[in-house]
Amino acid sequence: MKAYLIIIGDEILIGQVQDTNSSWIARLLNLSGIEIKQVKAISDEPEAIVAAFKVAEAEADLVLITGGLGPTKDDLTKHVMAQYFESDMAYHEETWQNLVELFARFNRPLTDKYKPQCFMPTKATILRNKMGTAPGMWFERNGKVFVSMPGVPYEMQYLMENEVMPRLKTGFNLSPIAHRTLLNFGIGETQLQEMIAEVEDKLPAHIKLAYLPYQGGVRLRLTGRGKTEEILSEELDKLSEELIPLLGDSFVCFGNQISFEEAVSNLLRAKGKTLATAESCTGGFISHLITLHPGASEIFQGSVVSYSNELKINVLGVKPESIEQEGVVSETVVAQMAQGLLNIIQADYAIAVSGIAGPSGGTPTKPVGMVCVAVASRDKVVTKTMHFGRSREQFIRFTTYAALNLLRKTFLLD
Amino acid sequence: MKAYLIIIGDEILIGQVQDTNSSWIARLLNLSGIEIKQVKAISDEPEAIVAAFKVAEAEADLVLITGGLGPTKDDLTKHVMAQYFESDMAYHEETWQNLVELFARFNRPLTDKYKPQCFMPTKATILRNKMGTAPGMWFERNGKVFVSMPGVPYEMQYLMENEVMPRLKTGFNLSPIAHRTLLNFGIGETQLQEMIAEVEDKLPAHIKLAYLPYQGGVRLRLTGRGKTEEILSEELDKLSEELIPLLGDSFVCFGNQISFEEAVSNLLRAKGKTLATAESCTGGFISHLITLHPGASEIFQGSVVSYSNELKINVLGVKPESIEQEGVVSETVVAQMAQGLLNIIQADYAIAVSGIAGPSGGTPTKPVGMVCVAVASRDKVVTKTMHFGRSREQFIRFTTYAALNLLRKTFLLD
Repeated sequence: MKAYLIIIGDEILIGQVQDTNSSWIARLLNLSGIEIKQVKAISDEPEAIVAAFKVAEAEADLVLITGGLGPTKDDLTKHVMAQYFESDMAYHEETWQNLVELFARFNRPLTDKYKPQCFMPTKATILRNKMGTAPGMWFERNGKVFVSMPGVPYEMQYLMENEVMPRLKTGFNLSPIAHRTLLNFGIGETQLQEMIAEVEDKLPAHIKLAYLPYQGGVRLRLTGRGKTEEILSEELDKLSEELIPLLGDSFVCFGNQISFEEAVSNLLRAKGKTLATAESCTGGFISHLITLHPGASEIFQGSVVSYSNELKINVLGVKPESIEQEGVVSETVVAQMAQGLLNIIQADYAIAVSGIAGPSGGTPTKPVGMVCVAVASRDKVVTKTMHFGRSREQFIRFTTYAALNLLRKTFLLD
Repeated sequence: MKAYLIIIGDEILIGQVQDTNSSWIARLLNLSGIEIKQVKAISDEPEAIVAAFKVAEAEADLVLITGGLGPTKDDLTKHVMAQYFESDMAYHEETWQNLVELFARFNRPLTDKYKPQCFMPTKATILRNKMGTAPGMWFERNGKVFVSMPGVPYEMQYLMENEVMPRLKTGFNLSPIAHRTLLNFGIGETQLQEMIAEVEDKLPAHIKLAYLPYQGGVRLRLTGRGKTEEILSEELDKLSEELIPLLGDSFVCFGNQISFEEAVSNLLRAKGKTLATAESCTGGFISHLITLHPGASEIFQGSVVSYSNELKINVLGVKPESIEQEGVVSETVVAQMAQGLLNIIQADYAIAVSGIAGPSGGTPTKPVGMVCVAVASRDKVVTKTMHFGRSREQFIRFTTYAALNLLRKTFLLD
């Protein structure tokens, strides 16, 4: 099944809004074995929309469209689609009922001026959007499917997961497909390839292995097709068991969507342990990444972002003479930061970082990009010095991952 | 001048990589008055690339292409372009010299196996890429321009700013254009429109006003064309001076790219003041946003992320009975957090936040999304209770902006 994505909206073409819908949809379709041939962003003009529809209808089996469904006059998709599929419009009571429920939930008054929004193309299957006011529309013609969804990401995601994918799976005979994704950290593609050659070389033709690099590591994804899901699952489980010992401590966990910081949080949760951080150059980013995910309070106690030396000395108990003698970016100082933090907080582990994020502040012996990291428990502290390049943002992100990985390798494995 | 963007790469079509190049390029072209008609992401296949080129050549004046220029076999763009423009390939000494300099800078050995990369299409103007190994290529045919650039964002950005835009500006008679962008915070489009109606209604035809919403506010952009840049500049300055009083304290600063947190940092810097934060529900995100930008150490002292009550009590000096009586999410507690922070750190201002980020943890009187914010100086503290909806991530972001805005309005205006 070949798919085209059409992203409608002038705000995309002037760069005001970053389109994130297409990569989200692409990931989802890819996992179901649907191949995306093209993603096209076009303006809110009827001619542009119709031209894109014609090309897509000729070349694809499935056309997913986002954007242009709101109540304002710019949002033309519904009317253009009705014309394109030669459909009448009619008042759609269920869409009105959806508005009634939504407005009640948000305590907002609903008046008859919202009725025109409830006129929908009669040839479309209307997909109820529980997350917003504009429903999705599913058109079929000559075996080709066009689905229009709102551009608001969580509304689109709700419709894809609850309305579109189930219909595609039951109605379109997608061939069975199964995946296992192994999240690895701290290792590049080339090295990984050497480590797992013995398994990769003997893979049967119906099972593919993909290397999916991300910042800090590579996901390995096994994908099987052409047999039943049960058989594929068994085969993939067996291959995964063979891969894991070869990956050593680079292997973090299974999971296609899980981020590295979530994986580390899960390891803490599984052990019933808690973490705190003392951050200088990362400025609170470690703490932010951990607390971005629900349930963080179970495993995270807090952080002291000691951007000034004053906080390092007064709150964390770093010795001023250590800062003078070895510098604030030194393994001695981060070790004191981590241990000092454990003196004022009931966490099991403390991470401390100090480095030179740049662009200025470097010296010949301590250049921009240098960072010292410590991880401490009540009876042990490990330290490490590393260098991370390029931009300030990347430095902060890589330092964060490296610090979490030091925690993982020192205290959370086995 | 009409432009098409073509993004080449299978990694985009399977959703593994989020394309950020197209929105960056779109913003840049838009500021120069070049209209983007379409953005198309296609796979690394010669047929797909040629098909996209044909459509673009027929419909656009300028075709910008990113991706598919690296040394690996997937990267076909160079060869497809040479064929498409019926060009021979020849060894290009300057491209080799660029490799020599790059490899010397990174202390890596350069061998002859890199020579094949230095064969370039003879019909192209080769654009030197000081940030990476693959140069850009500029083709012209019948007044239409095709430019190919690497997909790595900072390499593409370097080429756009240093090679592509200067050539477009000198060679293509772009009509003069001038902009003034006014960053506003805490106000929606509708309200803004009412506030500035008297200026908007009398705008001359050659000056347009665009509303560019972002999370938390709206940028207003005045764009003038059709006169010399000097005259346009004068006119836009005069209009800006008329707009600012109408915008009241919603107006933050001028700037097309500046973020709200940078604007607040600049206000602190201009006054020679410093900030510290005591964060509960935002988990360090305020601190992260401020320290993401170079020079943060001039205006930022640090943060205590008191995710646990223990840190609130032991480090910030919050009274346990206040937490018991009024709850940890209360104006009393955030006021104590902010004032307590100023007792342990030499900052001029402290921001404190405590709230319920969700998805769980809400109660009927203190629902998910409720947050209390305090901003304190040495002799004053203000507090505010707000509600921010939808997702955990949005709650954290909106709370951060609201807290910085409370600081701005209370202490940094005038």
